[in-house]
Amino acid sequence: MRMYDIIKKKRDGMELSKEEIFFFINRYVKGEIPDYQASALCMAIFFKGMSAEETFSLTKAICESGEKLDLSGIKGIKADKHSTGGVGDKTTLIVAPTVASLGVTVAKMSGRGLGHTGGTIDKLESITGFNTELSEEEFEKTVNDTGIAVVSQSAELAPADKMLYALRDVTATVDSLPLIASSIMGKKLAADDDCIVLDVKTGSGAFMKNIEESRELAKIMVDIGVRAGKRIAALITDMDKPLGNTIGNSLEVIEAIETLKGNGPEDLTELSVALSANILYLAGNGSYKECEKKVRMSLKDGKALQTFIKMVKAQGGDTELIKDTDKFPKAKYSRNITVEEEGYITSVDAEGYGMSALLLGAGRNKKDDKIDSTAGIILRKKTGDYVKKGDVIAVLYANDQNLFDSSEERLLASTVISEKRREKRPLIFETLVKMDFEG
Amino acid sequence: MRMYDIIKKKRDGMELSKEEIFFFINRYVKGEIPDYQASALCMAIFFKGMSAEETFSLTKAICESGEKLDLSGIKGIKADKHSTGGVGDKTTLIVAPTVASLGVTVAKMSGRGLGHTGGTIDKLESITGFNTELSEEEFEKTVNDTGIAVVSQSAELAPADKMLYALRDVTATVDSLPLIASSIMGKKLAADDDCIVLDVKTGSGAFMKNIEESRELAKIMVDIGVRAGKRIAALITDMDKPLGNTIGNSLEVIEAIETLKGNGPEDLTELSVALSANILYLAGNGSYKECEKKVRMSLKDGKALQTFIKMVKAQGGDTELIKDTDKFPKAKYSRNITVEEEGYITSVDAEGYGMSALLLGAGRNKKDDKIDSTAGIILRKKTGDYVKKGDVIAVLYANDQNLFDSSEERLLASTVISEKRREKRPLIFETLVKMDFEG
Repeated sequence: MRMYDIIKKKRDGMELSKEEIFFFINRYVKGEIPDYQASALCMAIFFKGMSAEETFSLTKAICESGEKLDLSGIKGIKADKHSTGGVGDKTTLIVAPTVASLGVTVAKMSGRGLGHTGGTIDKLESITGFNTELSEEEFEKTVNDTGIAVVSQSAELAPADKMLYALRDVTATVDSLPLIASSIMGKKLAADDDCIVLDVKTGSGAFMKNIEESRELAKIMVDIGVRAGKRIAALITDMDKPLGNTIGNSLEVIEAIETLKGNGPEDLTELSVALSANILYLAGNGSYKECEKKVRMSLKDGKALQTFIKMVKAQGGDTELIKDTDKFPKAKYSRNITVEEEGYITSVDAEGYGMSALLLGAGRNKKDDKIDSTAGIILRKKTGDYVKKGDVIAVLYANDQNLFDSSEERLLASTVISEKRREKRPLIFETLVKMDFEG
Repeated sequence: MRMYDIIKKKRDGMELSKEEIFFFINRYVKGEIPDYQASALCMAIFFKGMSAEETFSLTKAICESGEKLDLSGIKGIKADKHSTGGVGDKTTLIVAPTVASLGVTVAKMSGRGLGHTGGTIDKLESITGFNTELSEEEFEKTVNDTGIAVVSQSAELAPADKMLYALRDVTATVDSLPLIASSIMGKKLAADDDCIVLDVKTGSGAFMKNIEESRELAKIMVDIGVRAGKRIAALITDMDKPLGNTIGNSLEVIEAIETLKGNGPEDLTELSVALSANILYLAGNGSYKECEKKVRMSLKDGKALQTFIKMVKAQGGDTELIKDTDKFPKAKYSRNITVEEEGYITSVDAEGYGMSALLLGAGRNKKDDKIDSTAGIILRKKTGDYVKKGDVIAVLYANDQNLFDSSEERLLASTVISEKRREKRPLIFETLVKMDFEG
């Protein structure tokens, strides 16, 4: 078998065999296939696509390219949730304790943020003392004791994905649905959960800008899950505006805690309920309606919040912050952002909002950048709101006043105000559920 | 400017600017753009093609990526001939002295053979003493004294082509017409001639297997030549069978000498006449008919042969070999290849014949392989001939008898004999001439 022939076969629109795909991934990880052949193949895949069978083989090859998480020592039905990345998306902080409070095991590996989207691990680390770097033994023990733990993704899981993504990122081969799907699902399958709920974001702040592409990606990923014998659901949800009213790590944690206390903004609450109810449903807790009811109850009676506090305690975090969010460290400076026009906020560029927060220190441009957990944005007005000249639409927070100007500029440039009100977009466009496998 | 954006732009089907193309080539040659980005771009070009303007820019960038040959010290109208590579193609050995005998200056850089096609330099080096490595001063002096010299291509000419070709060769991005055209013409333009005649081969032994692709390639290359202010013609010629009756270095030189003496096989003679006449025509020697007449006369009256002998002498070769070709060193062993069936040779795989000769030691698999100048094949029967059981269709020559079996197997597997006679293919399919520029 030669890599040259594999590239040529895909280039000429033919289907690669499982053996050819594993040959590529296994040798690429070992450094036996050079980057220049891998990038040529990725570009050929960009143009010629991959069949469901090929995409599944690629996912499996990525999944098996390194160690796999062994959750066999962990009790119960294990569930995972994955978002394709959005701005202000803190649902994991709400969904994980909610489903755990209802008996679903959450042994979650999560990532750090890059670019305009945030990462759950960065958010959790804004809770003083919270330790996301547990050993395998600590992780297993914590989950078995409390039913939940969220830790930083170890480097050994699916190393092919890390290598391939880095290569695709510099060769304009990121935007290929089979490559995106196998990248996400390769990591998910390596994490060995029983149920997977995918949140496929769509809109200006998402990787997928339009609903058709998002639907296609969701379908491919659900198909992979089914082939791997997982119970899986995918929700296609709005990311044309930030989710909730905060962007930035500690600000988002505070908003998540408020939501767990029943005081969250509507969009964040409703999406968290839907994601949680779908996990519960996949885990076999009755009809979707019943699952949704259980979720709302857990948020109402404080069980979800208590589970969050239990998790924070077990992972060494300061639980006083959760009980009284005023105790979170604050940024030194703030600036109110006002508008000059009157009218409806007809649209925002959610990615622009994410970049505006990044410019305050809330995110990373490069993998090794340090982040400022107190920096970020509180949104006072969102898409659909009516604003008058001088109204504050957002408040910026930073520890360096020099950062405000460019951040403000980016935020205002990402906000469109006009006299005509735009039709409201749904929060959840569709839900794909597949659990009709048995075994 | 970023290479990432250049790849993405081409990937998305947009036209690259001259600046972007030069940015790519200049930085790639300096090692500032990695191979994995270059291969991704080549694959995007494979799928999206290039406009005439883009292809010309790429050709210019390749041409200017290193030193350019300076022929300003050489007198007369300078002409070059280039073949896209065939099996048994020894026309340069005939065309160069023929046109030089008629007053056109030939200051030619030529290459070595690789794979199933031979190289003019290897062939010339089978003449004892022939020196193809002249210094620039020696080259200029030899051409000015004798009107002709053929030397080995220096490494410094168009280094981008060498780098890109090596990369394309292992990433399945060779078969792209704009990349092929710019590779050939980048080197041709760097050689600073006034007239260029291209021999675009088509058929089983050629890089281009069908006439449509060959015609398209010819058009693109002629367009590049016109844009560069050259007088240029392209002939699309048959390579569905080897040219002439010999394959292998000294065997081909002997056949070329016979042709210069007026005793060559018809196909080789006619193609050499056509190529020579086109060069003469481009160089301004009257109508094509008149040019053809002059060429035939030079072959008939021995002037072309005398010029060849002058060249061999000037470059240190043993002219006794030319006068009496029996004096050429011979291979130690030979084997007659006979057929088992009766019928017409309806087709041969010319590439297979080339490989059969390579297996005898006449060619190179890798760049650094040594070749055996006496090894090769004399064809006794060719496509269209009627053969009977036991007829000798070819004689193999080698200095190691162990090489015969696999060579014979390859040759017979490349020969199709059947009862039905196939229609004869033309030797020259078409000729594109462009000299309607002035200045």
